[in-house]
Amino acid sequence: MKKFVNDPRQFVPEMLTGIQLASDGALKYEPKYNLLYRADMPRDDKVSIIQGSGSGHEPAHVMAVGPGMLDAACPGDVFAAPPSDYVYETSKLLASDKGILHIINNYTGDRLAFDMGRELAEAEGLKIGTVIVDDDVAVKDSTYTVGRRGVAGNFFVIKALGAASADGAELDDLVALGNRVNSVTRSMGMALTSCIPPAKGSPLFELGDDEVEMGVGIHGEPGRRREKIRSADEMIDDLLEAVVTDLPYSSGDEVAVMVNGLGGTPITKLYVIYAKAHELAEKAGLKVVRNYVGEYCTSLEMAGCSLTLIKLDDELKELFAAPAEIAARIF
Amino acid sequence: MKKFVNDPRQFVPEMLTGIQLASDGALKYEPKYNLLYRADMPRDDKVSIIQGSGSGHEPAHVMAVGPGMLDAACPGDVFAAPPSDYVYETSKLLASDKGILHIINNYTGDRLAFDMGRELAEAEGLKIGTVIVDDDVAVKDSTYTVGRRGVAGNFFVIKALGAASADGAELDDLVALGNRVNSVTRSMGMALTSCIPPAKGSPLFELGDDEVEMGVGIHGEPGRRREKIRSADEMIDDLLEAVVTDLPYSSGDEVAVMVNGLGGTPITKLYVIYAKAHELAEKAGLKVVRNYVGEYCTSLEMAGCSLTLIKLDDELKELFAAPAEIAARIF
Repeated sequence: MKKFVNDPRQFVPEMLTGIQLASDGALKYEPKYNLLYRADMPRDDKVSIIQGSGSGHEPAHVMAVGPGMLDAACPGDVFAAPPSDYVYETSKLLASDKGILHIINNYTGDRLAFDMGRELAEAEGLKIGTVIVDDDVAVKDSTYTVGRRGVAGNFFVIKALGAASADGAELDDLVALGNRVNSVTRSMGMALTSCIPPAKGSPLFELGDDEVEMGVGIHGEPGRRREKIRSADEMIDDLLEAVVTDLPYSSGDEVAVMVNGLGGTPITKLYVIYAKAHELAEKAGLKVVRNYVGEYCTSLEMAGCSLTLIKLDDELKELFAAPAEIAARIF
Repeated sequence: MKKFVNDPRQFVPEMLTGIQLASDGALKYEPKYNLLYRADMPRDDKVSIIQGSGSGHEPAHVMAVGPGMLDAACPGDVFAAPPSDYVYETSKLLASDKGILHIINNYTGDRLAFDMGRELAEAEGLKIGTVIVDDDVAVKDSTYTVGRRGVAGNFFVIKALGAASADGAELDDLVALGNRVNSVTRSMGMALTSCIPPAKGSPLFELGDDEVEMGVGIHGEPGRRREKIRSADEMIDDLLEAVVTDLPYSSGDEVAVMVNGLGGTPITKLYVIYAKAHELAEKAGLKVVRNYVGEYCTSLEMAGCSLTLIKLDDELKELFAAPAEIAARIF
């Protein structure tokens, strides 16, 4: 597959340089730790919100740094957790009297890196809280996790915490809010094709020409089942059913619906999928009060999508409506 | 290539349905004419701004309908101009005392459809102005054009006209403004791969595994030359050189830079490309005061990108900073 390439080993630094340059001074880039952070942070009147994860999921999370969202992101290499010293150094650099909040998608590698980074930082007196995101209903335990995986629903956690922290919320309240958002958020994805990690140079898994993977993970991890490809409407029906019945969401609930592209599916198809998801959600009695259609959390060039639902209340609706300024204009 | 499909013939209507549903009542959809338009338009105190073109270039233009941008879009099938009666009916439906403005990318098929649609509408007393966009410097005349092609720079025309019309500008002033924006806008694109129009089912053109098409059109039309693939930085240097020397842009000019993905190139690579484009533009003495990185005008799933520059003045800077609310959150 032909791609735009300079030195493949420099891909993450070059991308971060581009995001920093495009920010017109709003972001700073610290190459030593793959660290992208708001130029106006840290501030002692605001909790610093940090997310780190493997690269290859963009816009998550490096393009979600900015007012109203993350204060910093410290990505690792493609599909690799950030080293724990990146987490440690990032936390030190973003130190605030009000504390630091780590948002972590539930993968064993990320949790290890953040646990160690947190310990090192706390030993120096930093106050740190942690929110774990595990919104993926597809499988309990999985290739890289104990428990459920964290996927695109993570953006709902970031959005709520970014807005609340901008309003001056305290660290403990943010941890409680993050856990609450995660507890009412559910996702499931599906893949039409695999993706090709640059370091591997070949597809991560094999899918037949007429097959799809229902419940796929964002690193190509197996899902619930492999099956024959069907019409878009039928497959989306299955995704929505799996998500709705898990919480479960109930008739009368106000929800936001996210249709997330996994990297190789164009925006046009995501709107075709949204049309069906919206119709089915309303048929189930849910009231769709917000929607998000586009790429949020991708898996390199994987063709596929995920569906995320969140149950909203008045507080969350207000937080979701707050402004945000990030490279990926997705909120 | 595996895709999300229901009935392939229903792709455009299904996509438009999705965009309408996601708009939460802000947009209306009229299936008879592939017409998507603002629910709060027409209004007699605002010129109605309409764009039509082939589908397959999304977010152009169906995802650019909303306050501050287009008032209506009437797309044709994939890579096919809208029928002239769609243009006519759309113009009638959007009739305003202040007039109607047609924005047309310079392709023979689109110009014919809009000329006929305009004649029919004028015969019924409608007041219509036209702005032709032809920002592509790659070739003079081409497969589907007399004169230069209109490509992603078209979004700069829409943005300026959308903002000015929201402020109550008159039709004649909008035509003059549109022509002025087009006159200081230049683009050129390049393809790493072809695209596969659904009706054809096979690649539109053949490119060797080690080849790229410099100056490619958004329907796969030939560009300036076919050459061996090189590093991203070297190829972007060539694109920028072609664009900068055409106007020419001069040292000291304030510019906006757009890096547009053609459909199959991820946002990560577009930021890698932006990093180089920004560096080269500043080296040439240009002052980059705004930037746009993402997908604006695509060519189905073609891997590739285009670069667009516009020379800004105080009036244009103000118009570009005005708010816009559209499905593609790109402004």
